[in-house]
Amino acid sequence: MSEDEGKGENPETPSLEERTTRAGRLPGNRYVRIHQPADFRRRGGRYIAGEDVLRPASAAGRAYEAIRRVLFGPRLESEAEESERLSVPTGLAILGSDNVSSSAYATEEAMRVLALAGIGAFVFTTPIAIAVVAVLAIVVLSQSQVIQAYPNGGGSYIVTSDNLGTLPGLVAAAALLIDYVLTVSVSTAAGVQAVTSFAPELHPYVVPVGLVFIAILMIGNLRGVREAGIIFAGPTYVYIAALGALIGYGLIRVATGQIPQAAVPPGPFGATGEPLAGAAGALIVLRAFASGSVGLTGSEAISNGVPSMQPDERRNATVTLVLMGLTFSTLFLGLTFLAQVIGTIPDRSEVESLNSLVTRSLVGYSPLYYLVQGATALILALAANTGFTGFPRLASVLANDRFMPRQFAYRGERLAFSVGIFALAIVSAAVLVWREGSVTELIPFYTIGVFLAFTLSQTGLARRWRRLRSPGWRWRAALNLLGAVVTGLVLVIVLVAKAGEGAWLVVLVIPLIVSLLLAIHRHYMAVQDALVIARLDEEVAETRPPVVIVPVGRLDRATARAVAFARSISPAVKAVHVATSEESARAFDERWKQWAGKVPLDIIESPYRSLVPPLLRYIDGIQTHDDRPITVVLASFVPHSWWEWLLHSQTALRLKASLLFRPNTIVVDVPYHFDDGQVPELRR
Amino acid sequence: MSEDEGKGENPETPSLEERTTRAGRLPGNRYVRIHQPADFRRRGGRYIAGEDVLRPASAAGRAYEAIRRVLFGPRLESEAEESERLSVPTGLAILGSDNVSSSAYATEEAMRVLALAGIGAFVFTTPIAIAVVAVLAIVVLSQSQVIQAYPNGGGSYIVTSDNLGTLPGLVAAAALLIDYVLTVSVSTAAGVQAVTSFAPELHPYVVPVGLVFIAILMIGNLRGVREAGIIFAGPTYVYIAALGALIGYGLIRVATGQIPQAAVPPGPFGATGEPLAGAAGALIVLRAFASGSVGLTGSEAISNGVPSMQPDERRNATVTLVLMGLTFSTLFLGLTFLAQVIGTIPDRSEVESLNSLVTRSLVGYSPLYYLVQGATALILALAANTGFTGFPRLASVLANDRFMPRQFAYRGERLAFSVGIFALAIVSAAVLVWREGSVTELIPFYTIGVFLAFTLSQTGLARRWRRLRSPGWRWRAALNLLGAVVTGLVLVIVLVAKAGEGAWLVVLVIPLIVSLLLAIHRHYMAVQDALVIARLDEEVAETRPPVVIVPVGRLDRATARAVAFARSISPAVKAVHVATSEESARAFDERWKQWAGKVPLDIIESPYRSLVPPLLRYIDGIQTHDDRPITVVLASFVPHSWWEWLLHSQTALRLKASLLFRPNTIVVDVPYHFDDGQVPELRR
Repeated sequence: MSEDEGKGENPETPSLEERTTRAGRLPGNRYVRIHQPADFRRRGGRYIAGEDVLRPASAAGRAYEAIRRVLFGPRLESEAEESERLSVPTGLAILGSDNVSSSAYATEEAMRVLALAGIGAFVFTTPIAIAVVAVLAIVVLSQSQVIQAYPNGGGSYIVTSDNLGTLPGLVAAAALLIDYVLTVSVSTAAGVQAVTSFAPELHPYVVPVGLVFIAILMIGNLRGVREAGIIFAGPTYVYIAALGALIGYGLIRVATGQIPQAAVPPGPFGATGEPLAGAAGALIVLRAFASGSVGLTGSEAISNGVPSMQPDERRNATVTLVLMGLTFSTLFLGLTFLAQVIGTIPDRSEVESLNSLVTRSLVGYSPLYYLVQGATALILALAANTGFTGFPRLASVLANDRFMPRQFAYRGERLAFSVGIFALAIVSAAVLVWREGSVTELIPFYTIGVFLAFTLSQTGLARRWRRLRSPGWRWRAALNLLGAVVTGLVLVIVLVAKAGEGAWLVVLVIPLIVSLLLAIHRHYMAVQDALVIARLDEEVAETRPPVVIVPVGRLDRATARAVAFARSISPAVKAVHVATSEESARAFDERWKQWAGKVPLDIIESPYRSLVPPLLRYIDGIQTHDDRPITVVLASFVPHSWWEWLLHSQTALRLKASLLFRPNTIVVDVPYHFDDGQVPELRR
Repeated sequence: MSEDEGKGENPETPSLEERTTRAGRLPGNRYVRIHQPADFRRRGGRYIAGEDVLRPASAAGRAYEAIRRVLFGPRLESEAEESERLSVPTGLAILGSDNVSSSAYATEEAMRVLALAGIGAFVFTTPIAIAVVAVLAIVVLSQSQVIQAYPNGGGSYIVTSDNLGTLPGLVAAAALLIDYVLTVSVSTAAGVQAVTSFAPELHPYVVPVGLVFIAILMIGNLRGVREAGIIFAGPTYVYIAALGALIGYGLIRVATGQIPQAAVPPGPFGATGEPLAGAAGALIVLRAFASGSVGLTGSEAISNGVPSMQPDERRNATVTLVLMGLTFSTLFLGLTFLAQVIGTIPDRSEVESLNSLVTRSLVGYSPLYYLVQGATALILALAANTGFTGFPRLASVLANDRFMPRQFAYRGERLAFSVGIFALAIVSAAVLVWREGSVTELIPFYTIGVFLAFTLSQTGLARRWRRLRSPGWRWRAALNLLGAVVTGLVLVIVLVAKAGEGAWLVVLVIPLIVSLLLAIHRHYMAVQDALVIARLDEEVAETRPPVVIVPVGRLDRATARAVAFARSISPAVKAVHVATSEESARAFDERWKQWAGKVPLDIIESPYRSLVPPLLRYIDGIQTHDDRPITVVLASFVPHSWWEWLLHSQTALRLKASLLFRPNTIVVDVPYHFDDGQVPELRR
């Protein structure tokens, strides 16, 4: 903006008029004015950086902005956060889909273990399913207490660290972080398996298809919580409706005695296991229960995400939680019952799911079959979304508590925790690739994290009631204690039953993550100790002008600008030149005196032709009598394009790198742009 | 160094005592003193950075230094350059080995072409060899004129651009650059082939063995010219002696009529070519001559490297040149004659060389055989060294003329042109890998470059004599004209004869290189135009203190240091804070007033939570009434280790990157080191 254009300026514009205080050096005149740029609105003396300010100026920037908008939607103001909240229906879809979707595979997981003991062992399937539902009931009841006690988001981490201390809290956090990653990997793998059930020719592409799923989920979540809800609500309800219809139809068939013939799985099934007897038999039943209890996972998402609900948050969250428990139980028990009555056995090769076999037995390859399978595939893939809801939120809480990098606490342009969403997508994709998309092998990892977090938070809550002794604390504490004991028991069962299948890995990884979180915390605390200003009434120091050293290579306009800048910031300026021969040293000295005689020059002759080490040694030799910083001003030439960089020796860069860790040293790059040549640089 | 330690300082030390000129701000006291560091010697008011200054301080630095010393030897002062010069014997070994070594394969190359027309065509071998030697004689004579005319190193580039203009000069330079690269590749491949002749089991490892050779050559040359000579002189003389002995013995056998039976090559040889008649036959003979003229290559190394010779440089160079011509001719003609008399035919599979077959025919698998083959292998590999002598020197000349990046003009610690040596090693290794170590296919590329450069420089020289008209200019001009015509003729023959074998590629590559050299030149000239200071009596400008903007994130010691520094360099300091909500904006404003009320603060509210774009827009809004630079002072925290960087948001870095190309803007990083917390930062 030129002086003339400034005439029409807003009268509110604060024109910063300062007068130079250096008597005698320069005439004191108005020399700096900050015009309010057209884009900035103002409020209470502050500038507001509205959308206009963020609009990119370059063509490339505008193109990027357009793509970003299509993918992620327009930016959201911080104030828009409340309108992004979830209603009960969208809450059930977003926070409950993980748990509800487990009904699609929990039966199969239990039966797969029982199959080791032969087809006869399948009689234990129904009892195990009932046990799982019973545990879920206890979990739902105690989670509803968490919602009451921690309406600001009662994740296991918060509940545990609040009531049992930081270390148990971090153990719960580590378990949950693992859990969320595996939620994404397991659900994606299960979703892909549902697809391969009715499109077996896709089986070799399990991993690529899974990665595409994860990418879609990532983009959906970067668009923000509410848009994710809109995208994901549909499939959840289609799944509930389709599976409900199937189970209803199946029950009618059974009631009317028209039990269909079981569809046969495509894979070979060697059903000649050991007989189910004694300790070995009991272990197999326990292991089957451990596998089936995967149906309990995802049930903590709601109590964790209370602040995402619309007000009244507690009531809405509790309603959603109960609806979730009922939906899961109905679908899970219904599917288990039908599988038993029809006599379906799981496909050992993992090509066709039990769910698909049951559906096929009942309705053949009818449209309902494709509806059920399609909805199952979608809800399984979208159950992964629970991980995308939980992980970034937990990471942001940990980042606010300084246990994770603070970048995890920043909300992106769509108010989503973008860094957490990215990190989760990358890690879970890596797990999927590492396990080559095989679901069953991932489940022990997954279950242990869930139940560890459950046990810790239930124990913490029980302790809380005892401490607070509010009305009815006894039955509340008892309920949570029961929850802790039951989930703890499941944890032990899973640990023992699955020890051989890699569960031990989780036991290794959790302490590792906890120590990483602690190391990060220690760093942040140390930095805070080093940086914190104890008393605000300490004034900013009056520091004397710095000692300025200007290394000069040759006499050109870039050097001239650097020397001029150095002189403008301090009266104590010294130039230093490194010459590679005595003649060139003499010649430079001569020309310097002619040109900039006022600025003292030291010349270093470097017979070994090295530049940086002599300069560093020279700077080391400078000593100030107080602790004012030594400032090194470097002339740097900025060419038009990257390849032109290669044509200039990078001495300045190397010197800068060497000075980076030198205490009390400030390096100033005075850039000389290619086009600056037009501007008259030197004035008398 | 503390104040106390400073007492014993050298009386010569210039204690820079400056008084602050800013009246009233600070008491004018001695505030900066540069002690002469113990390591710096002094001479005529200048510091001398001796070896001590370059000694690294850290343990890692010392270890690196030790390894460097073992590999490359101790550093050399610039003044040591003269003692690095070459005597005639070392000169012949270093500069002449390329040409002399061609005797090992020139005969074979010619015969390989003749073989296409059947065994009968081999009668043309001897006439072709004589023609090659005749051309060499002309070349040697005209090169000796180059030595007289250009005692400072008369490479074809210099001679041509001096007499015919820049563009022809650059064509010669491009041809030579290609030539040197191919010298390395071809000689290495030939050396490896000599090894595989007597160790055929190494044949699959041609490329790796070649790469090791190149690496050894690179290190040898980085050690400097003279040490390279000491390393490389031995093999050259062993080769000359061994081959001389073999030829002598062979001639005696022929004279006494005891002609041995020809050894049979191991590979199959389909000798049923077309009969040698008509135009096709003539073409084959010409192609054979073109292949054999590879024996002329390398002959320009001496005239190019005159300054590397001990004084009297001209005399020594001329003697070396003549010795080289005689040595090559003797060995080449002798070997060709013996091959003809014995009736040896080349091995089509390229496993055993003609040289090996001839030697084997004469002396069987005797010790002399192994001596000849070993020496051949070594000299062929070391002939590659000619490339390492020529390329870096030519590149440095081109860099001084601003046609190549100036890094090529710097002498390394051993006075060698390190960048050129590295570049040559990398490019020639790439060529070797690309051609999979096959010699014959590389030769056309190689020969064309040589003869193009010859023709251009001979023409240039002829023109020079005509222009100068010094005594005897007529016969000198005639001689060079003859040289130009003969080498030009050879050039045309090679181009026509080898057009199908990839010679066209050189014709494509030369213009490409020339335009690259011109583009680099244009860039340097444009930079010089932009940067040059026309009149030295223009004084360095008195610039007023800069407008300083300090973006502040939070109130901590790093911020305090940045603000203190900003205030020390200018009275016009403004802080700016970006807040993501109204409340945090208010709170920050409140705290700022308490803490640094003197420094004006602007607050930008950024409801979209973005930091960098509003800051950039804010800086754009600042306008100075003159062109004084806007200085942005950034507080930056420097952690202990690299992983800790990840824990801090890189806002400062992003801001810096965005400001890099902004005109008239200087960014100052005020680092706050982790340990700085100990130093009392703020004083009243």
